[in-house]
This record gives sequence, structure tokens and C-alpha cells, in this order.
Amino acid sequence: MSGNSFGNFFRITTFGESHGKAIGVVVDGVTPGVSISEKDIQRELDRRKPGQSEVTTSRRESDRVHIISGVFNGKTTGTPVAMILYNSDIRPKDYEEIRELFRPGHADFTFYKKYGLRDYRGGGRASGRETAARVAAGALARKLLLARGVTVSAYTLRAAGVECSTFDPDVIEKNPLRAPDLQAAKKMLEKIGALAKEGDSTGGIVECRIKGVKAGLGEPVFEKLDARLAAAMLSLGGVKGIEFGRGFGCVDMRGSEHNDWMDASGFLSNNAGGILGGISTGEEIVFRIAVKPTSSVSVPQRTIDIHGKEREIIVKGRHDPCICPRLVPVVEGMSCIVLEDEYKSQAALLE
Amino acid sequence: MSGNSFGNFFRITTFGESHGKAIGVVVDGVTPGVSISEKDIQRELDRRKPGQSEVTTSRRESDRVHIISGVFNGKTTGTPVAMILYNSDIRPKDYEEIRELFRPGHADFTFYKKYGLRDYRGGGRASGRETAARVAAGALARKLLLARGVTVSAYTLRAAGVECSTFDPDVIEKNPLRAPDLQAAKKMLEKIGALAKEGDSTGGIVECRIKGVKAGLGEPVFEKLDARLAAAMLSLGGVKGIEFGRGFGCVDMRGSEHNDWMDASGFLSNNAGGILGGISTGEEIVFRIAVKPTSSVSVPQRTIDIHGKEREIIVKGRHDPCICPRLVPVVEGMSCIVLEDEYKSQAALLE
Amino acid sequence: MSGNSFGNFFRITTFGESHGKAIGVVVDGVTPGVSISEKDIQRELDRRKPGQSEVTTSRRESDRVHIISGVFNGKTTGTPVAMILYNSDIRPKDYEEIRELFRPGHADFTFYKKYGLRDYRGGGRASGRETAARVAAGALARKLLLARGVTVSAYTLRAAGVECSTFDPDVIEKNPLRAPDLQAAKKMLEKIGALAKEGDSTGGIVECRIKGVKAGLGEPVFEKLDARLAAAMLSLGGVKGIEFGRGFGCVDMRGSEHNDWMDASGFLSNNAGGILGGISTGEEIVFRIAVKPTSSVSVPQRTIDIHGKEREIIVKGRHDPCICPRLVPVVEGMSCIVLEDEYKSQAALLE
Amino acid sequence: MSGNSFGNFFRITTFGESHGKAIGVVVDGVTPGVSISEKDIQRELDRRKPGQSEVTTSRRESDRVHIISGVFNGKTTGTPVAMILYNSDIRPKDYEEIRELFRPGHADFTFYKKYGLRDYRGGGRASGRETAARVAAGALARKLLLARGVTVSAYTLRAAGVECSTFDPDVIEKNPLRAPDLQAAKKMLEKIGALAKEGDSTGGIVECRIKGVKAGLGEPVFEKLDARLAAAMLSLGGVKGIEFGRGFGCVDMRGSEHNDWMDASGFLSNNAGGILGGISTGEEIVFRIAVKPTSSVSVPQRTIDIHGKEREIIVKGRHDPCICPRLVPVVEGMSCIVLEDEYKSQAALLE
Repeated sequence: MSGNSFGNFFRITTFGESHGKAIGVVVDGVTPGVSISEKDIQRELDRRKPGQSEVTTSRRESDRVHIISGVFNGKTTGTPVAMILYNSDIRPKDYEEIRELFRPGHADFTFYKKYGLRDYRGGGRASGRETAARVAAGALARKLLLARGVTVSAYTLRAAGVECSTFDPDVIEKNPLRAPDLQAAKKMLEKIGALAKEGDSTGGIVECRIKGVKAGLGEPVFEKLDARLAAAMLSLGGVKGIEFGRGFGCVDMRGSEHNDWMDASGFLSNNAGGILGGISTGEEIVFRIAVKPTSSVSVPQRTIDIHGKEREIIVKGRHDPCICPRLVPVVEGMSCIVLEDEYKSQAALLE
Repeated sequence: MSGNSFGNFFRITTFGESHGKAIGVVVDGVTPGVSISEKDIQRELDRRKPGQSEVTTSRRESDRVHIISGVFNGKTTGTPVAMILYNSDIRPKDYEEIRELFRPGHADFTFYKKYGLRDYRGGGRASGRETAARVAAGALARKLLLARGVTVSAYTLRAAGVECSTFDPDVIEKNPLRAPDLQAAKKMLEKIGALAKEGDSTGGIVECRIKGVKAGLGEPVFEKLDARLAAAMLSLGGVKGIEFGRGFGCVDMRGSEHNDWMDASGFLSNNAGGILGGISTGEEIVFRIAVKPTSSVSVPQRTIDIHGKEREIIVKGRHDPCICPRLVPVVEGMSCIVLEDEYKSQAALLE
Repeated sequence: MSGNSFGNFFRITTFGESHGKAIGVVVDGVTPGVSISEKDIQRELDRRKPGQSEVTTSRRESDRVHIISGVFNGKTTGTPVAMILYNSDIRPKDYEEIRELFRPGHADFTFYKKYGLRDYRGGGRASGRETAARVAAGALARKLLLARGVTVSAYTLRAAGVECSTFDPDVIEKNPLRAPDLQAAKKMLEKIGALAKEGDSTGGIVECRIKGVKAGLGEPVFEKLDARLAAAMLSLGGVKGIEFGRGFGCVDMRGSEHNDWMDASGFLSNNAGGILGGISTGEEIVFRIAVKPTSSVSVPQRTIDIHGKEREIIVKGRHDPCICPRLVPVVEGMSCIVLEDEYKSQAALLE
Repeated sequence: MSGNSFGNFFRITTFGESHGKAIGVVVDGVTPGVSISEKDIQRELDRRKPGQSEVTTSRRESDRVHIISGVFNGKTTGTPVAMILYNSDIRPKDYEEIRELFRPGHADFTFYKKYGLRDYRGGGRASGRETAARVAAGALARKLLLARGVTVSAYTLRAAGVECSTFDPDVIEKNPLRAPDLQAAKKMLEKIGALAKEGDSTGGIVECRIKGVKAGLGEPVFEKLDARLAAAMLSLGGVKGIEFGRGFGCVDMRGSEHNDWMDASGFLSNNAGGILGGISTGEEIVFRIAVKPTSSVSVPQRTIDIHGKEREIIVKGRHDPCICPRLVPVVEGMSCIVLEDEYKSQAALLE
């Protein structure tokens, strides 16, 4: 497939380029009769939108969502919910200089090889801007999941080499890093600020916790719940790895130590991260993703142009020195989409 | 979907339980006119089959493949290739004792919650045995990829806390760990032997390197090449994480440092692991997976039965104290399936 | 699935309701580098749009298409082509009276049973207006097919009980019935005019001929070319049957008579309608669809409301007394989508 | 896709060739916990199997089904149900003579064009024998549907130019034509016998009636219930058309006449054939398919060989002079598969 759709029953299809007319999403398979408003969607989009703080790009997009279809009198009708965000602050001129250059770390070279042409306007479909469409769809999924008792929360666990050592859920949305540790957030901010001044960038780790998922969700073989979450997360630009529960830390453990034992009250530990054999255990689902340092840096780099000629490049434009905080709502949105889909899948199986 | 199929154009569907009559696979979308024999398939199955050494289960399965359809006069016809492996050394009695018990670390509990019933015979569909069907399909994909110049090689990078420090591809298939470092392999073997004596187990890291993939393969958004490989790997029981290129190691790097620069001769480094924006760069594709310690251990563990009653369990049966070496051909097989599918996808796009 | 997507490689997803903000389509899997303009799309939409003549509804929709994404500098980029048509002449008030009534012959009752709610605004997703999105996508497919030498032409073969007896392709677009026989068209027009005056409607037969399809397209079993065309056509509201080649007329023939013999120059007849075993023969593909009389009639009819109460209904609004001529471009568009998809499918198989 | 799978949630994948080792099917998405036995499946297979009477081929296949997976202790487990039928009475030698000839009316020519090679053994995947796999899967679906109160019954309405004029459901399985009118069946038998003596064949019409389907099943746009049934039926070799309810007979009717009115007791007529806007009305679903005369006839015919040379052909082998009676259980089976899938689809939507 051409890869612009995701999900089986609750299925999204995104479209639009970073510096084109608009980006949008069509969500199919939405339960009918559910209350939803543009405000519900906008709330999540505002968390992702650019220009929120000094660690994010200064591009000014209102990211205002328009629900075009699938909602009537404030309720979903069961037909496709199409949502559109018109691009406003586009500056294709920012990209004129690099129209024939491949930016290091970006998909410029690979897209050129795949499609045989170059849409040089700020990454086109490979731009992080595409994820706004996912956040919109995710907000819809989140609304549906809330009624099922499921909540999804992600945050920056590590950035610029600083890791959180405390966990206070209440502070996450109150600092520009979306970190659960204010002290750590402060240090991250300083380091990122220093890097930004040098025109450079950094990466980090985003952790996600999902509560309230009933036991028995997920498929047994290829569509394991962790396989689907992994696909969802690796489909985000800049994500280079994922781990569940104890993750890479489990490899040196003993089986007797890693296994989560049970007593009458339930599981006694959660090393598995809430998933066994690809199916939810009923415990909290926990995973972490590795986020690479932002590719757009304004230090001089070596590259080539579409004719193979060697060139030096200094990437201008407006970019996030660390994308973790803006990834947080995207990670949550994609998680919601996966889970909503799984609830429907299980209903179909048992019907 | 019910999750027993994988791939879009080159698409496999597996069936069968560990201790049922047989396991098998149907492969659809196979290029017609390609020479293939049961020998080609058997070679890969023999690498995965049980009973190869002291680090693997002593179950004796010949794992002999039967090609049932889709091949005529030694060549693929373009119609579905069905392959079956009849189970021979099944011992459902081994599992009689635990028919109402949930084995810690296994999918027993979650399958029971999902399906409302218990197929207690050795894990059923959740058993590692299901992966033999994938290896058979992967062997077919590998044959097709070879003609495209693509080679896939996996190996145990770390096991029982020991990591390889040298890389000699020629020794991989010559030691029971499938490690590229004989010294390390020896140490791993000792440690695993000691653990096995205690009835315990360990995990490890399997690394995979794919050479010869042309630039431009993979899809831009949801079906990114890394997203699909991640889904493929996390669909393997016991895999708890995956990372590409520098993986989790990239999170503290600077963008200017992590970006792979280019000159007229190509990329100057491969921190990205051969994939940018979800699409192949033409460089070697490199990823690593975290393999958890085998769940089946014969030390006493706490668990419950299907009635919620607390019980002690000692898992008998025949199990691998470390599954890394037997995962190696499975990781390769799944990688082949993903890549063969992507070649077809790209052909469809450009048609 | 929720049924708003069609196609495998060349895949469309439509959204929007008849009397909502807009209708639209996302087309994924479009070959990159192909010249396309809004004018190319508009040409086909203008053939379907309302208000063309006395046999079509008087609703006035400009049906102006906006290409939102997937085209850059006049060429497709290989990313999703989203197209939107904003609704302008909506009159939800026309439907206020019937907001609790089920219109006979319409999907009002069945949608209510399916979704548990009533979007009474002119049929919502079940409205013929949804097909404008298909025509837009079909125009894109047609452009791609033209380069392959494929042409698709449909026309009204029968309407109001009058059947064409001559075939002049040049007159099809020159009469309001889109009939290939001007004499017959004239009679149809008279009969339809008379029915319209009585507030009643009629049906007809649309025939479609596809030239230039190479031999070997289509899949062998479930996705036979005729099966997919049948699904495409029966997915159009008001279509109650389809037949290929000699169609229902073949049932009384002898095998020796119906079989299309061959000599060195090719097939000697085309009773099969260009498809054998689900795969194209290289001959002209020919099928006919049965179009039911328009359900919206202003004669009094018996029905019930959503509370089960018996009511009389007189359907007002603006409707086509015979939808055949406006179905013609839709039939062509859907045929183009199927065929473009098949070309890509075959490329993937042979890759 | 490569076209060997059908269905979304309840999804079947068939494999195997007419004169290969076996044919089979994998059924995914089966509700767990349902009682099923090989006997349940065999009953339906016996209705399709060859050698039942003088109107069917004399090939002797026991068509004995083996359930390989997905059933444990007599109940479905929710994992894939694989079923295999080994071929026994294969006579590839029957086909040696025609290994380079294209049989008129068969898929020989088109398969050769598609795949570039010739599996000359009796049609391979294009053989009617493939449908045994569908019947097996259909028998499973039928079992599930019975619990939902749905019954599916097909029969020969017309054959050899003779149409039934009475309808007695009790005689359908008691005459070799599976016709609901014994008088008509007798005449059909005579005519078919005469044709068979001449080495020729005939076609017919099979009608199908589905009772007990609840209102609200089916999807609104592309996956309309009639679109899916049409795809299912046209995916059967030899079927050249389908019509629902009044079918082609509706085209000359008036809207006011064709519309099914309602009163408090429900629909007053069923011209629609139980489907409005692609969604079930709760009335009986009724459709008819046009079955072409069997292509295999032993009268001399003109054809070419794979080198393009003109040849005369007399098709030997063992063939049905009219395939209608053996199509009956296949039509029922495919209908069951579609409907079971739709029940699951609706459950997913409403979840």
C-alpha cells in the first residue's frame, strides 16, 4: 500500500504537505452517536502546535481544525469524519535555496530516490507537520476511549542528556519540555537553549503510559498489540527505537526474575509493560521511544545536490532544537488510534 | 483483523498450533516463474528447528516442509504457495498438569482473557513453533531477494550478559549461539549452561544487517520501512524492543553529529541505519532487537489458575534457556518478507 | 471495514454528505510525475453535475474541484491527492418535513437501523452526490489510463422502456440522455418528460465499453476483474444488476456456441465480454448495469416514521426523473479506478 | 492484492490447484467457542462433490475434509481454522494433449498472458475445484449464522432453457438439478442429457434466498451488501451476471411502482430484494446469477496453441454438462461468508 492509511476498523488516512494548501485526515469506522466538537479536537492540536515556547519552532500556525463531515448536530454519524487544517504561515521561499540540496538527516535524498522528483517545500509529506493530522484523529479516538475508561499519557523522560528522576504527573503540561520532573525540565531547558544558540539540536526519550485497557486486547500473531504500537511509533519521523516494559534492560535478566508473577489480587510486577504474547494483561501499558536529535541544524554540513555535486549546507527555516515536547501529544494520539482500533477488533472477533 | 496475515502484496497467512496436527503458511503474491524447491525451504527450517544444541529445546521435530501448491515443475506459478509442517513429537501430556494454570511470562493468561477458553497444549498459536511457518515463507522471500542482490544476516550480539566485541561473519553459523565472536560465544555458552542447570534462563540482543537494498524503498508515512520492520520484529514472541542504526544511543547526540553527511561517493556515515524518513538510503540497514529471558523456567513460581486460585508452578516441558540463536533465522525470514513486499510495493507505485 | 475506501494500490477514500459542508476524496497510490490539473478533473465533474437538462435535478452545484495536496508544479508527487468540492446550494430545509419519515426506495430506513440515528439531510452519505467524489478520482485514473492506451466509454442503452437500436459514439455527449442513438434519445426524453410531469420516474440500462486493456489483467480467484467491476457498479446507489458480455442471455446457449474461438488473428467473437476466468482477454470489456427508477417521486406513498407510525409521504426536493445520463460518467470513473488499480497490481505481481 | 483472500473480519484464504496435491482454505476471524466438527463441513462438501449424478462430472473425489487447526476439543479457538482436501483422482495425463492448447471459454489463454507460464493440469487455480475450499469455509460460516437465525438457500431456477414455475423447497435436494420444481427438473434433465450426448453443454440461472438477516447490515458506500455479494458471485468461474430483487426487470418500472412501501407491520413488497442503499432491510435477500454454458465441450472447436499456431481442439476429461446444481452449495457458501463478515463488521462499528 502507499502507506497513508493506518488502522483496520478505526482507520485513518492523512493527506497534505507541510507547505501546501492544507493537511487533513479522514477517519473511518467511528462509532455513531458519540458527542464530539471541534473544541475537543482543537485542545489536542494546541498541544502540538508550533510556537509554544523557546524549544519549539517559531512558525506560527493557528492549526485550526475544521470538521468537514461525519458529525451532525454535535454527534458522530458513523460515516467518515474528515478534518482539515489549512496552512497559513507557509514560507516556501525559505526553501528556495535548498531546492536542489539534500538536507542531512532529512528524507530529501530518499524521497528523491523513491519518487524521482523533489517537493522541496519543507519536507512535504515527510514533515513533522503531517502529524497534526494524526493528533486530530487521535483526539477523536481519545474521546471514544475515555468512555471505555482508558487514559493515555506521554511525557519527556530524557532530553539533552538529562533524565527525570521524579514523576509528578501534574507538572507535565506545566513546563515547556512536558517532563514530569520540574528540576530536570529546568536543566533540559538550559542545555537545549545553549545548543540552539550554537544552531545545533538534541534528542531524547518519550515515555508513554496507558491505563485502563482491559485484559485480552490485541491479536495473537502479526498484529500483536506491541507490534502495532511499535509500527505506530516508528511511523513518526525521528523515532529510532521503541521498548516495552523493562525493554532492553530485560536482556540480562533471568527468566524467573523477569516473569511477572500473579496472586489472587493480580500481577505482582509489570516487567512486561502490560502486554504478554501481544495481548494486554490489564496492567498499565508502558513503552519508551528513542527520539533522534532534530536534523535541521544551522551549522555548516556537507551534502550533495540532486546532480550529485558536493555542496555545503546551512539549514535555515524555523525548527525545534528538541522535538520531544511536541511529540508527546502525537505519541498519545497514535496510541489512542491503535487502542480504539483494538477495542473494535475484539468486538468483531467475539460477535 | 484477526492478525494471522502479514504483508500487502507479498502476503503470508500462518495457521496451526504448537501441539496440533500441523503448522503451515500460505504465501500469496509470489512472482511467477521463479525456481524453488523444498530443499531451499528446508535449509532455513533446519536452522530454526529444535534440538540443534545444548542451548535449545530437546523437542525433536523434523520440521520437514511439504509444498502443497503454487509450484509446478520446480517453478512458482504466481498462485498461492502453501507449505505445511506436520507436528510429530507432540506431547500434550506434558501440559496436562498446567491445563488450568497460567504460566508466568507466557500468553496463557492473556489468551484466556481474549478468547474465553484455554488451549493449554504448549502455547497453541503463541508458541515459538508458529515461527517455523514464517521461516518457510521467509526462505521463499529470500530466494526472490537474492535475485535482486539483497542479503540478510542476523546474529546474536549479546546473550547472558556477554556482548560480542569482534565481528567475523564466517563463524556465525559455526557456533550454537550464532554469535559473530567465537570467544564471546564460548562465554555465553558457559553462562547459559549454568543457568539451565538452575532451571533458569536468560535473554539477549539479536542484530540484523541487510545489504543491497536499493535506495527509495519504503513508504513515506505509516508504512515506513522501519515501522514495518518494527512491527515484524515485535510480532515475535519474546521481543521487547527494537532500535535502528544508533538507536537509543542517538538520544544524547547533537543533530550535527548524528546526521549522516554525504559527498559525491555517497553517505559518509550510517548513524541512521540505512533508513531516512522511512525510506531506504541504499546503505546497509541495521537494527537490533531486545530478547527477553525465556519464560519457561523450572524454578518454582507463583501464579493463579483459571478459577483465580493461587498456585505454585514449576514449568516442565522442553525449552530453550536462551532463544536468541533460534530467533536468528526467524528475524532474517521476517526481514525478507518485509523487503520482498516493499519491492513489489515500489513497482506498483511507479507503474 | 467501514466501507468508504475502494481499491488496493490505487485506492480512494471518499467523505462528506450531500447537505454537509463538502464532499471529497483522497486518492492514494498515484504514480508520481504525471501531469494533472484541476481542469482535467473539472471536465468529468461537469458531465455529472446537476442541472444539465430537463432530465436532471435542478439543484445548482458548481461542483468546483479543489486539489488540496499531492500535486506540485502541475505534476503528481506520488503522495495522496486530496480533492474537495464544497457544497453550495444546500437546502436542509427541504428535508425538515421528512426528518422523521422514511422515504420509500431510499436508504433512510436501513441507515436508521444501522447507525441508530437519522441524518435526514437529503440522504447524507447515501446520496448520489457522494459519487461526485468518485468522478473526481476517476478523472485522475482516466488520465493515467490514457497513457496506457485505455479508453472507457459508457452510455444509456435503454431508458423509460426505450432501447437504442443504433450506435453512434459521436452523439453520446450531444443529447441529454447520453444515448448513442438520437432517435431513441428523443423518445426517451418524451417519455421521461411525461413521467416527470406526473411526479414519477423511470429506470434504464447503462452499458460500458472499455478498449485497449492488455490481456492478463485481473486476479484469478476472488478479485477477478469482473468481480471487482461488479462490486464497483453495485456500490452505486440505484444499480440492481450487472452482466458481462452476453450476460443473462448466455444461459440458454450451448457451450460450443458461447465459447469464443480463436485463430491466429485472435478471438473470433466476444461473447465473454473481454474477460475469461476473471482476467482480461485483450478484447473489448463490455458490461451492462440495471438502473432502478429514481426513488424520489412526488406521488403520494405509504410509509412509516421513526416511531413506527404510518404516514403518507410526498417527496419534494429536486430530483432526476431518470438517473442514467448522470450515472454515465460515474460508471466510467469507477471503471477507470478498477483498471488503474489492476495495472498496478499486475506490476507488483511480476516485480 | 493477489486475490486469494476474501472478507475483512471473517476472512478466507484459499490455495491449491485442481490437479495438484491438495486444495485448502484458512479461515481467520472465527468466533471462539463455537462447536464445529468435520462432519458439519463434510455435509456441505458432499453436496458439491463430483460424481453425484448424470449431470455432473464423473471425476471421483472423496473431497474428505481435514481440519488442521483452530479447533480444540470440538470447539473453535478463535485462531485460524485451516482445512485441507487432498486430491486423489487426479489425471494430469488427461491434460497432456492440451498442454500447449488454449481451451475455448477457459482461462487458459488469460492465465498464460498473466503469469507467462502454463499450468495445464485441468485449469489449476481457475478450476471449479477451487470452490470446494470455499464450500468448506462457507460451511463454517453457515454454522455461525445459524446461531444468528440466518438461513441461506439456493437452487437452480432455470437450466437448458427450462424455467421453474413452482417453488417447493422440500424437493430441491431431492433432484439432481437442485430445482424447486420437479416437473421442470425432469425436463431440464432430459435436455441436458441430450446435449451431453452431443458432447455439448448448457447454462442456467441460480437463485439464492437469504432469510433472517437483521436490518442494518452492510456498509454505506463501497462495501454495500449487494456490492459484496456481487463480488462474491462474480468471483465464481462461469458466472456472467447478477441481479437483486426485481433486477433487470426493474428498469422499465415507475419509481412509485418499484418503491417498497411500508406500513406499521413492515414492508408491503420486496422489489428491492432485501437491500436498500447497500444495507439490509430485514426482508428476505434475493438474487439471481447467470451461469454460462460449461466451456468444456467435446465437439471440435477452433483455437490456437501457446506459439500462436491454429489448432482444432476436442476437450476430453470429465466435465459437467451444466454446472448449476453443483454451484448451488458454492453460492450458499459464499453468501454465508459475506454475511458472517457483515455481522462482525457491524459489531466493530457499534463497539
